[in-house]
Amino acid sequence: MRGRSGRVTDHALVRPRVAEAVPVGQNRAVGAQSSLSPGIADRLKRDAAGLVAAIVQRHDTGEVLMLAWMDDEALHRTLTTGRATYYSRSRQRYWVKGETSGNVQRVVSVALDCDGDALLVRVDQHGPACHTGTATCFTGHELPVEVES
Amino acid sequence: MRGRSGRVTDHALVRPRVAEAVPVGQNRAVGAQSSLSPGIADRLKRDAAGLVAAIVQRHDTGEVLMLAWMDDEALHRTLTTGRATYYSRSRQRYWVKGETSGNVQRVVSVALDCDGDALLVRVDQHGPACHTGTATCFTGHELPVEVES
Repeated sequence: MRGRSGRVTDHALVRPRVAEAVPVGQNRAVGAQSSLSPGIADRLKRDAAGLVAAIVQRHDTGEVLMLAWMDDEALHRTLTTGRATYYSRSRQRYWVKGETSGNVQRVVSVALDCDGDALLVRVDQHGPACHTGTATCFTGHELPVEVES
Repeated sequence: MRGRSGRVTDHALVRPRVAEAVPVGQNRAVGAQSSLSPGIADRLKRDAAGLVAAIVQRHDTGEVLMLAWMDDEALHRTLTTGRATYYSRSRQRYWVKGETSGNVQRVVSVALDCDGDALLVRVDQHGPACHTGTATCFTGHELPVEVES
């Protein structure tokens, strides 16, 4: 959504009306309704739902915070707004991380992996990253590694 | 595969014959043919192919190395052998990271995320992690972050 000046408005970032109207399904994969640069879109290897995995890492401590998902439009918004924006598979809508909790993620860098189906998003994390209130979504969920001798 | 002594043999780790015979598809999701602890299996939220995403991170530098996939049996082998073992979606078979390249990953810790569909595998990485020869699968693939003002 752009204002008369052609600039993206704050409103567009908080309430992505256009995005919410995009139907979920196979067709989302082609990214036809996204403004993502074709040069980047061509490199994405999307799953059947049109998504790529996004690994989110704190840029300063190196902690891995969470795994989320992006389609072309979520990646476009992430790259152009500097606010980490994902696609929620359960809620079937875009979400700007921290839009309700305030625990926002300012994007420091984004890299695609060698085969185009995963993104590494390095962020400046405000507050806890997990919706449960822990620092990361992996905090407190260690599994036992018991190597057989 | 176990020898007469009941101990897992090296052979079993390199050539997982039983694993290769497991049919690929929806049925793999139930983990019926895996020895993974039921207490852990119950916490996994698998995708339609029976897989969870595995984020692989160097334990010493914090670098995110790659994204791979695990089903119940791959996780079981990872937890009990200490060698990072994944399920290849393209080759439809298990693979022990480094089994051909020598660039093995010794497992330091494994954690599940808050909703059970992602794993964080912290490893001691020998050599480059990416099959292309770079340190990580994200090395050299940065995307431009161009925040609109």
